[in-house]
Amino acid sequence: MGNTFGRLFTLTTFGESHGAAVGCVVDGCPSGLELSLSDIQAELNRRRPGQSKVTTSRSEADEARILSGVFEGKTLGTPIAMVIQNRDADPSKYLRIRDTPRPGHADLTWRMKFGHVDWRGGGRSSARETVSRVAGGAVAKKLLGEFDVHTVAFAREIGGVECDTDFVFTKSVRKVINGNPVRTLDKKTAKLMEDVILDVKAAGDSVGGIIECVTVGVPAGLGEPVFDKLNADLAKALLSVPAVKGVEFGAGFNLAWMAGSEANDEFIVRGGNVLTRSNNSGGIQGGISNGMPIVLRVVVKPTASIAKKQRTINLRTKKPASIQVEGRHDPCIVPRAVPVVEAMVNLVLADHGLISGFIPRKL
Amino acid sequence: MGNTFGRLFTLTTFGESHGAAVGCVVDGCPSGLELSLSDIQAELNRRRPGQSKVTTSRSEADEARILSGVFEGKTLGTPIAMVIQNRDADPSKYLRIRDTPRPGHADLTWRMKFGHVDWRGGGRSSARETVSRVAGGAVAKKLLGEFDVHTVAFAREIGGVECDTDFVFTKSVRKVINGNPVRTLDKKTAKLMEDVILDVKAAGDSVGGIIECVTVGVPAGLGEPVFDKLNADLAKALLSVPAVKGVEFGAGFNLAWMAGSEANDEFIVRGGNVLTRSNNSGGIQGGISNGMPIVLRVVVKPTASIAKKQRTINLRTKKPASIQVEGRHDPCIVPRAVPVVEAMVNLVLADHGLISGFIPRKL
Amino acid sequence: MGNTFGRLFTLTTFGESHGAAVGCVVDGCPSGLELSLSDIQAELNRRRPGQSKVTTSRSEADEARILSGVFEGKTLGTPIAMVIQNRDADPSKYLRIRDTPRPGHADLTWRMKFGHVDWRGGGRSSARETVSRVAGGAVAKKLLGEFDVHTVAFAREIGGVECDTDFVFTKSVRKVINGNPVRTLDKKTAKLMEDVILDVKAAGDSVGGIIECVTVGVPAGLGEPVFDKLNADLAKALLSVPAVKGVEFGAGFNLAWMAGSEANDEFIVRGGNVLTRSNNSGGIQGGISNGMPIVLRVVVKPTASIAKKQRTINLRTKKPASIQVEGRHDPCIVPRAVPVVEAMVNLVLADHGLISGFIPRKL
Amino acid sequence: MGNTFGRLFTLTTFGESHGAAVGCVVDGCPSGLELSLSDIQAELNRRRPGQSKVTTSRSEADEARILSGVFEGKTLGTPIAMVIQNRDADPSKYLRIRDTPRPGHADLTWRMKFGHVDWRGGGRSSARETVSRVAGGAVAKKLLGEFDVHTVAFAREIGGVECDTDFVFTKSVRKVINGNPVRTLDKKTAKLMEDVILDVKAAGDSVGGIIECVTVGVPAGLGEPVFDKLNADLAKALLSVPAVKGVEFGAGFNLAWMAGSEANDEFIVRGGNVLTRSNNSGGIQGGISNGMPIVLRVVVKPTASIAKKQRTINLRTKKPASIQVEGRHDPCIVPRAVPVVEAMVNLVLADHGLISGFIPRKL
Repeated sequence: MGNTFGRLFTLTTFGESHGAAVGCVVDGCPSGLELSLSDIQAELNRRRPGQSKVTTSRSEADEARILSGVFEGKTLGTPIAMVIQNRDADPSKYLRIRDTPRPGHADLTWRMKFGHVDWRGGGRSSARETVSRVAGGAVAKKLLGEFDVHTVAFAREIGGVECDTDFVFTKSVRKVINGNPVRTLDKKTAKLMEDVILDVKAAGDSVGGIIECVTVGVPAGLGEPVFDKLNADLAKALLSVPAVKGVEFGAGFNLAWMAGSEANDEFIVRGGNVLTRSNNSGGIQGGISNGMPIVLRVVVKPTASIAKKQRTINLRTKKPASIQVEGRHDPCIVPRAVPVVEAMVNLVLADHGLISGFIPRKL
Repeated sequence: MGNTFGRLFTLTTFGESHGAAVGCVVDGCPSGLELSLSDIQAELNRRRPGQSKVTTSRSEADEARILSGVFEGKTLGTPIAMVIQNRDADPSKYLRIRDTPRPGHADLTWRMKFGHVDWRGGGRSSARETVSRVAGGAVAKKLLGEFDVHTVAFAREIGGVECDTDFVFTKSVRKVINGNPVRTLDKKTAKLMEDVILDVKAAGDSVGGIIECVTVGVPAGLGEPVFDKLNADLAKALLSVPAVKGVEFGAGFNLAWMAGSEANDEFIVRGGNVLTRSNNSGGIQGGISNGMPIVLRVVVKPTASIAKKQRTINLRTKKPASIQVEGRHDPCIVPRAVPVVEAMVNLVLADHGLISGFIPRKL
Repeated sequence: MGNTFGRLFTLTTFGESHGAAVGCVVDGCPSGLELSLSDIQAELNRRRPGQSKVTTSRSEADEARILSGVFEGKTLGTPIAMVIQNRDADPSKYLRIRDTPRPGHADLTWRMKFGHVDWRGGGRSSARETVSRVAGGAVAKKLLGEFDVHTVAFAREIGGVECDTDFVFTKSVRKVINGNPVRTLDKKTAKLMEDVILDVKAAGDSVGGIIECVTVGVPAGLGEPVFDKLNADLAKALLSVPAVKGVEFGAGFNLAWMAGSEANDEFIVRGGNVLTRSNNSGGIQGGISNGMPIVLRVVVKPTASIAKKQRTINLRTKKPASIQVEGRHDPCIVPRAVPVVEAMVNLVLADHGLISGFIPRKL
Repeated sequence: MGNTFGRLFTLTTFGESHGAAVGCVVDGCPSGLELSLSDIQAELNRRRPGQSKVTTSRSEADEARILSGVFEGKTLGTPIAMVIQNRDADPSKYLRIRDTPRPGHADLTWRMKFGHVDWRGGGRSSARETVSRVAGGAVAKKLLGEFDVHTVAFAREIGGVECDTDFVFTKSVRKVINGNPVRTLDKKTAKLMEDVILDVKAAGDSVGGIIECVTVGVPAGLGEPVFDKLNADLAKALLSVPAVKGVEFGAGFNLAWMAGSEANDEFIVRGGNVLTRSNNSGGIQGGISNGMPIVLRVVVKPTASIAKKQRTINLRTKKPASIQVEGRHDPCIVPRAVPVVEAMVNLVLADHGLISGFIPRKL
């Protein structure tokens, strides 16, 4: 249980890292939306491994197949099932570490919960699972695009290197971000981040970072207080992403030391619309979108799989043991997590769009 | 919609700040749990206004009445309805600011979403709504106590003053925390925090802070990947609390600059149990509890209502306006949010306890 | 658990038969709906006991109080909580039958499931629980009325006496039905049904019947295949009503011996609208409303509580025992179940109205 | 939306009749259950078309492929995705009837709801969708079998021919039922039913019937009053099956003319267990299973697709039209609906088994 997300626009995912396939079922997408395989594939390609020297060398084409829900190029309003075969699965290296749980991984908790587990590459606890999120998110993205809602995420910080370029939503901003291997806002920072990653990689180690995500075009009124607030549902969505350990909205944790007079966003009128001068609330007030850009940040922990020798235990002997995780891993998960963060935000917004009536059931 | 929380152990809340009453219905509590009004009242008293000079002077007895679900001192397994009358409601000050939305509040977003709103004291967007959460959380707390699961929250930081005392779960720790008006871990820090709050209050301003929450006794195995991970559901629960703008687990945002070798929690065996030497993961790995204490922090923004004059707009004229929020408000919401944070954590744990089978349906 | 119904328009109910109160929380009702206590009370009065000699002599005023969600005569879009105190509770007669489960009742299954039970008058398994459904359904009825959707139920059959008057939706039809104690379509049948009921009552026995329910004005398009079909959700709603043991739509069980050529509803055009000449499908095809009246029937079993001596067992001794159920009971539950059936149908239609987008979030 | 069923044990289905594939995702199945493709295939084969002269000649191998959730012959507790390719899809005959909705079908309601539809063979409104239910139900069946819960359905009535053989659960009863093409309890009745079907087929017509379903081994305590009663969830499950227009439990609609003294099931003790002498309640009292066999019946309408010429309208011209549905169709859907009914009942029982704690999360 726990593999379906959303209320009206839902995503159900399935698949183990080294099983036959991963995939998903998107339900609740309105009928009449133009949708093609290339809409899906474009997003999967952004997440795909093996794209640069800062990512893992596991090579997966990650080619999706749409099994249902689309006819004559348009959605039917019925479930959209998508399957992505696993091809470059190589479980051999996992066999001998079956009984020595990898520090920082979910090996042990899954075993304690489920008893019988797929030990190959983490099974379903692998970040490979996020392929399904990106495929589902691509449908949400296409849908939201029809209503001029656009979500862009990027690396705000990697291994201590912060990008201090302001984010401005322009037609070219996605191109800039996709144009560097670390998915940040400018080339200079990109180079610094890349260096940090290659350094830790060389040291057999890994590094984390912060992803920022901005959505423009969300109208006022999305979010269902008191529990299904927009930020609450976004927080759940993002904390369900592997390696994410925190989320903040607007001024976030900085609000801890700000005064109310400084933190409050003053209301102003521009072109007949009520806006706020600052956006410390990150576009959400009282759990409801206010029409300003939705701004959030998540922290991504350093990749748990590292080449360095680590201490662990042997589950059979209950004795100390050491482990060296071979496999093929990203020294920093941030760049490939960028499209995953976008996917989760788009899924939440599509769902709330339908719940609030902003998005109709039929296009 | 959006006023019911949880899957098997659910909380439904209702009530406007200046309406007849606030209250809740707890459903899914196992039968046979000893529960009395004093269990509920003890928690409400911790949240109640008017307890010290750092809180609002609104005086509400907040006396709960249990209408159903308890018989002969024990729960029936049926819905537990609780009602708390609103007594000291004084809407007079809100009348003349009906059309000038208060900066930092949900006045405007609620009006845009719902059209017809209760403008008295924020209506349902008021933090008074959290009374219902605390009442419901008290049931969850009592239930979890039967299984030796204990949750304690406290002020880790207020207005820049950080408490650097380590949290250790002892029998007396709750007494220490409740023994100072700011709900922190030691008296010395408490005094510093109190001073900060009184300073900003004197200046007609407000201040925010960080609440830390620790749960001990959670067994390994709670949490339902991939979407209903324990941290994901906790994140949703906490971001649904008014004024909370971020959450982090374990090492949280610090993971952004840590190396994997530093962040990974090494597995060790102690007394036959597998533990981790450090707890950077905050007791949750892969979305599943690992038996270590669950540690999380939330940021609470400064109270939006401040005495200082602020600029806003008049919604009728669409012209700039100024506003001074009178009413009676907490200069810092952190102390009274402490029991609310505990309540939300307990609600999530009770729900996951039932889902995972850790808690039976009948005691 | 299991005490909340619906997805967007939800009803949560609470209360035991002889506890402090019964009540409910309606969530998801759009804002801006005119709603007064008399809207609720009018429906409760139709269900209230003690209205005629064919119903129980338990006298409950069943006066509702609205605690939240309504302000200045209009709904706020927030939860509407309603409480009805229990007044004429007389548990004395139940004390001595605590250990001898009443045949046909839920005494034993509740005890096996929950262990600790409220034995007074069946506790929460009592049909008194339906007060909350009628209160919640009254909100749904008011909402649907704004969109010219009208639901009327009536006794089609009682104790073998069938009403063969055709149902035609007119302004006066509700008056006719409410004008006789058995809630049927014509006075002549009403007299016959009343006689049957009084006969079985005199014999210390009880009798069942069939309630028919017709809804006019439902537009085409409500219902969410493949699982949340309109008839599926209606079936669940109706089978959740105490004493209901079956439901059928349109031609229902008669379809078992009809030929396809006879059963199929031929499409025709009338005034530019596509209708069907017959309505064997009961207004729902493929789980989606087709614009024709929605027609369904439920069977209501004879009241389980009868004055006649019955054989049962003693749960302590596990020996045979006999029981005479005293209390005050309806010899036929059909008349008072009529508004309950309407309530459940209205709740489902309000929910599907919102899900399909037919009903907006804000009036 | 509406394509996921259940709370803890869930089934999500997808697929159009003439699209690439149909399939499903089962979530919430406990880990450690032995499960093989043959468990699934055995059930699919019982539903498969082309098995006898009373069924359609459409020939589909209906071979399932399991993509996830099973490893080394056992379930992982993760989602089990299954795909069945559509092979013998022949949409040619549907092209020319695109604009003339078939009477008794969902052609028109789907078009009104979704606008853009897959007109080939009814698209997702086709009964082919039930393949996914049977695949999912096979997992539930296997799981319940571990706890000695067994569900058997059969044709109780077809086209006026009633089977009056009593159902007795024996080891051979499934063999008897599967041993005749109409899936009834004895050969003599089978022959009569077969004759009726062949007669109507020869006449270019179709016929309906009644399926009875009995489950043995369900312990007391399943079902969650007041809304998620066991019979309520079963009713929803069954009314979501195409062509089903009614359901009744135990004595069902006969209760309308029974006296309470006759309808009430007397409690008795047998071998230390409390049973009921009769089973008019169909194994469910107050919405909770009582340990007796669960007995229900559904009415299946005659197949809507008939060879006879029927009157309809042309949606473009809004003029009367006539239609002859060619394609390949079952003259009676009852025999092939038998495993579908079993599947839905098993899905509900697996879900309630988990919710009640009867079935653990880990085998």
